[in-house]
Amino acid sequence: MTEVAQWDVFEASFEGPSGGNSFLDVRLEAFVQHKSRQMRVPGFYDGEGIFRIRFMPDTEGEWLFSTRSNAAELDGKTGSFMVTPARPGVHGPVRVANKFHFAHADGTPFLPFGTTCYAWTHQPLEEQGKTLESLKKARFNKLRMGVFPKDYPYNVNEALHDVYQKDSDGQYDFDRPNPESFRHFENQVKALGEMGIEADIIIFHPYDRWGYSDMSERQDYAYVQYLAARLSAYRNVWWSLANEYDFLLNTKPMHQWNRYFHILEENDPYGHLRSIHNGDPEANYDHRKAWVTHVCIQNWDVKRTGEWRLAYGKPVVNDEPEYEGSIIQVWGNISAQELVHRFWITTMRGGYAGHGETFSHPDDLIWWAKGGELRGEAWKRIGFLRDLLEQDVSNGFEPIDPQTRYPWNRVSGARDGDTTIIYLGEHQPLIWAAGLPQEPGDYQVDLIDTWNMTVEPAKVVPAPANHPTRHGAVVMQRKPDAAFAVELPGRPHLAIRVRPASA
Amino acid sequence: MTEVAQWDVFEASFEGPSGGNSFLDVRLEAFVQHKSRQMRVPGFYDGEGIFRIRFMPDTEGEWLFSTRSNAAELDGKTGSFMVTPARPGVHGPVRVANKFHFAHADGTPFLPFGTTCYAWTHQPLEEQGKTLESLKKARFNKLRMGVFPKDYPYNVNEALHDVYQKDSDGQYDFDRPNPESFRHFENQVKALGEMGIEADIIIFHPYDRWGYSDMSERQDYAYVQYLAARLSAYRNVWWSLANEYDFLLNTKPMHQWNRYFHILEENDPYGHLRSIHNGDPEANYDHRKAWVTHVCIQNWDVKRTGEWRLAYGKPVVNDEPEYEGSIIQVWGNISAQELVHRFWITTMRGGYAGHGETFSHPDDLIWWAKGGELRGEAWKRIGFLRDLLEQDVSNGFEPIDPQTRYPWNRVSGARDGDTTIIYLGEHQPLIWAAGLPQEPGDYQVDLIDTWNMTVEPAKVVPAPANHPTRHGAVVMQRKPDAAFAVELPGRPHLAIRVRPASA
Repeated sequence: MTEVAQWDVFEASFEGPSGGNSFLDVRLEAFVQHKSRQMRVPGFYDGEGIFRIRFMPDTEGEWLFSTRSNAAELDGKTGSFMVTPARPGVHGPVRVANKFHFAHADGTPFLPFGTTCYAWTHQPLEEQGKTLESLKKARFNKLRMGVFPKDYPYNVNEALHDVYQKDSDGQYDFDRPNPESFRHFENQVKALGEMGIEADIIIFHPYDRWGYSDMSERQDYAYVQYLAARLSAYRNVWWSLANEYDFLLNTKPMHQWNRYFHILEENDPYGHLRSIHNGDPEANYDHRKAWVTHVCIQNWDVKRTGEWRLAYGKPVVNDEPEYEGSIIQVWGNISAQELVHRFWITTMRGGYAGHGETFSHPDDLIWWAKGGELRGEAWKRIGFLRDLLEQDVSNGFEPIDPQTRYPWNRVSGARDGDTTIIYLGEHQPLIWAAGLPQEPGDYQVDLIDTWNMTVEPAKVVPAPANHPTRHGAVVMQRKPDAAFAVELPGRPHLAIRVRPASA
Repeated sequence: MTEVAQWDVFEASFEGPSGGNSFLDVRLEAFVQHKSRQMRVPGFYDGEGIFRIRFMPDTEGEWLFSTRSNAAELDGKTGSFMVTPARPGVHGPVRVANKFHFAHADGTPFLPFGTTCYAWTHQPLEEQGKTLESLKKARFNKLRMGVFPKDYPYNVNEALHDVYQKDSDGQYDFDRPNPESFRHFENQVKALGEMGIEADIIIFHPYDRWGYSDMSERQDYAYVQYLAARLSAYRNVWWSLANEYDFLLNTKPMHQWNRYFHILEENDPYGHLRSIHNGDPEANYDHRKAWVTHVCIQNWDVKRTGEWRLAYGKPVVNDEPEYEGSIIQVWGNISAQELVHRFWITTMRGGYAGHGETFSHPDDLIWWAKGGELRGEAWKRIGFLRDLLEQDVSNGFEPIDPQTRYPWNRVSGARDGDTTIIYLGEHQPLIWAAGLPQEPGDYQVDLIDTWNMTVEPAKVVPAPANHPTRHGAVVMQRKPDAAFAVELPGRPHLAIRVRPASA
C-alpha cells in the first residue's frame, strides 16, 4: 500500500477528458476516509488530460478515498494509502492558538517571523536558488509571496511563467490556468516547507500589467477555487487574500472579497490560516469577520499593536511596519535599527511583525520583491529575537498590560509562563523596576542588547522606594514597583529578561 | 512726567488699610486711559499696607489713570505717565497668529522652543542663579514654571518661600498670600523677560505636601485673581492653568477649571495666552473652549500632531513629548536622539515641542524641576532647530499635507513662504523627491544633519520617472514627484531645505 507520512502530501492522478475546457467543464472531488471520519477534498485539472487529488493526512493509519466527478472516467475511482508517523521536524499546519498566537497542529508553538519576496517565484531560476540559500542562513519562518508576477518600480522584468495560458492571438485566456506556472509555484511552496518556512500566499495584488488583477468576478472565483484545490495539501500554506486589497476595490468590490474567503473555506479542507492585507493604514478590512483567522496589517505605528488586538480579538501580524532600505518610496527606507526596534515593540505588545528589505540596487535586485541576497542589518537581529523568544515560549508572549496603561503605553513588556521580557526601546533609564517580579525569589535576570545581540546577567539592586505622591488631597504611598530593580548602562535599545533561576 | 517704555511695566503704589485681611477685604482697580481708549486694570495688596496697580502699555504717548476702591484711602487716585518707544528687542506679549502659530504684539513671529524647570524659583538662590546662566547659553525662549513648590521624587527639599502666610499656630492661612514669595516669583519672571524668555506660569499642580493643591474653591478663585493682578503686566507671561490638571480633578472638578480661565480673562487686561496641560494622554481638556488660546499637551506620539491641530483648530504646543534623561520614571528617560527626533517631527507637522531633562543626579539636581545645569545633549540640537526655523519663518511652518496623507503620514515636511523643509527622521532614502518644488527654478537646496548640526549644499539630481502603477484596471502614469530630486547619504535623521536661490 502507498505510504505517506502524516502532514505530507498524498497524491492520486487520473486520466480524464482533455477536450473543451477541462478547467471549467470537469468537476472532481474525492471523499477521503479514516475509520468513520470523512473529509471532502477538491481535485484539479493539471493539463494534458491529467486530473489530480491531493490530500494532507492529519492522522496515522489507513485511509481510503473515492472520487466523484461529472466526467465518467473520473467518477468512482477508489484507492487507499497508509499514513506513517510524521517525519522529524514536521509539526503540521499552523493554527491560531491561545486567541492571539499560533501553534502547529501538533501543539508546537509557532512564532511567525516573516519576510517578504513578493515575486520571487517569477525571477530567473538562478535568482530563486539564491533566495532559498539566503533563507537557509536567515531565521525567517514565513514568506509572503504572490501567485502573480509584479509590475512595479524596480519590477519591470518579464515573469518566468504565464500564470494563464495564451490563446492563438497571444491574448491571455483567463479561463485556462497555466499548469506549468502553478506547478513551479507549488514546488517552491514545498521547498519552503522542507525548510520549515510557512508560505503566506498572496492571491491578488494590484501591481499588474498582464491583466491578472482585472479578471472577471467568475474568473476570480474559479482562480481561488483552483488554488485551494492545488495547494491546500501543502502543510505550510497560509492564505493571504491580497497585498493591499483596498487598492483593488475599484475592480473587486467588497462582496467579492468576502466570497473569496468563503471559496477558500469551501475548498481547503484543512482550514489553513486566512488573512487580508491593507494598503492605506486607515483601510483595514474588518478582521472580526468569522472567516478571517488573524489580523494582517500594514502599519508603522507599532505601539498601537494592543489596539488592534483589542479591536479584532485575533492574532495580529503586522507584515509591513515599513521596510529596511534606501529606495525613494517612504515605506521602503527605514534604518535597520528602526525596523529591529519595531519588531521588539510589536512582539512585546503581543503581536508579530514582518521583515522586508528594499535597498537600492543597480540591477533592481531587491529582496522585498525578487528575493536573492539579503543586504541589510536587520535580519540577523530579527533572528536573534526569534531565538530568544523560542527559548521561553509556551502559550505566546502576552503584553504585561493589555490595556497599555502607564508605563506600558510608553515601553513594551510581555510575559509567557514564568518569563518576563521588558523592552525599553528609546528609553534609557539607569535603573528599572516596573514589570519585574513582585515577590522576592530566585530569578535569572538578564540584560539583552537587542542590536549587538548579547545576553548577559543583569546587575540586580534593591527596588527604590516610591515617594509618596499626592494628587490633591489623596496621598498615594505606593509600595515599591517590584521586589528588586535592575541597574542599566543608560543607553537605548536594551531589554530585560527575568525567569526562574532553575530554568 | 513718569516715563515708561512700551511693553514695560508702569507701577503706582498707594498706602491703604492694613488691619483685618486686606487681601480679602479691599478691592482696588484702576482705569487706565490713552486718548479715548480705556482699560480696566486690577490692583493688588502687597502687604504692610501697600497696594499697587501695574500696567503694561501697548501704545506710545500719554496715559492717565484713576483708581476705584472700597477703601477711601485708595479711591479716586489719579496720575499720568508717558509711554516711550519699546526698548530694542522688546516686541510685546505673544499672541496666537495665523491660527496655528504665535507672534509678538508687534508682529514679530514667535516660535516657542520651551523647556521645563517646574520649581526652580523655590530652590536656593545660588541654584536659581545657575539656572539663569544656563538659560543664557541655551536657546530656549519659554520656560514652564510653577508658582507653588513641588513635592515629588527627587523633590523633597523645603521651598525657598511659603507661598501663603502661616498663622500663629504655624498653619498656612490660605486667605493670606505671602507677598515676599510672589515678589520673588515675579522678579524671576521679569528676569526671564529681560532674556527674551516667556514664562509659562503653572498655576496649579498636584505634587504638593503643603496644602496648596487642596485650598477651597473660594480660595482658589482668589489666588487666580491675585496672580493675574500681580503678574499680568509682565509682557512675557503665559498662563498654564495646570501641570496635569486631570490628576487634580478629585479636588477641583471641571467647573472650577472653567472658572479659573474666566477669572484670568476678567483680570488680565492684556489677554495673555491661556492653556491647560494634561497628565493622562487620554485626558486632554477640551481645548476648543473659547477661553483656551492654544493646545498644551503631554503626548509622546508626535506623529499625531496634525490630529490635534485638526481636533482643536489652535496652535499645538506639546510640552511633554517625554524628557531626555535616565531616571526610572518612563516619561523621563528617553535618549537625546529621540527627543531631538520628536522636536523635528512636531515642528515639521505644524506644532511646537517642549524640552525637559531628567538625568539621575546624586544630589537630585535635575533640570526638569530644579533648573541648575543642563547635562544633556538635546538642548544644543533644539537650539540649532530654532535658529534654522527663525531664518525663514514668516507666518509659521505649516505641514505640507495637513491631512497627513501618504507620504506625509510617515515622514514630516513643512512650508513657510518660499521655504520647504522635509525631515526624513528614521527614513534613509538615497534619493528623495516628494515635497520638492514642482516647477524648475533657481533654488538653494541644503542637506541638514539634525544631530551633527550641519547645513551643506545638497546634491541635486534629476527626479526619477514614476513607474506607471496599476490599481486593478486603473493605470496611473503619474508625472515625477518634483522638478528635481536630492541625493542623500543613506543615513537617518537628515532634513532637506529648499528656498529660492536669491534668499
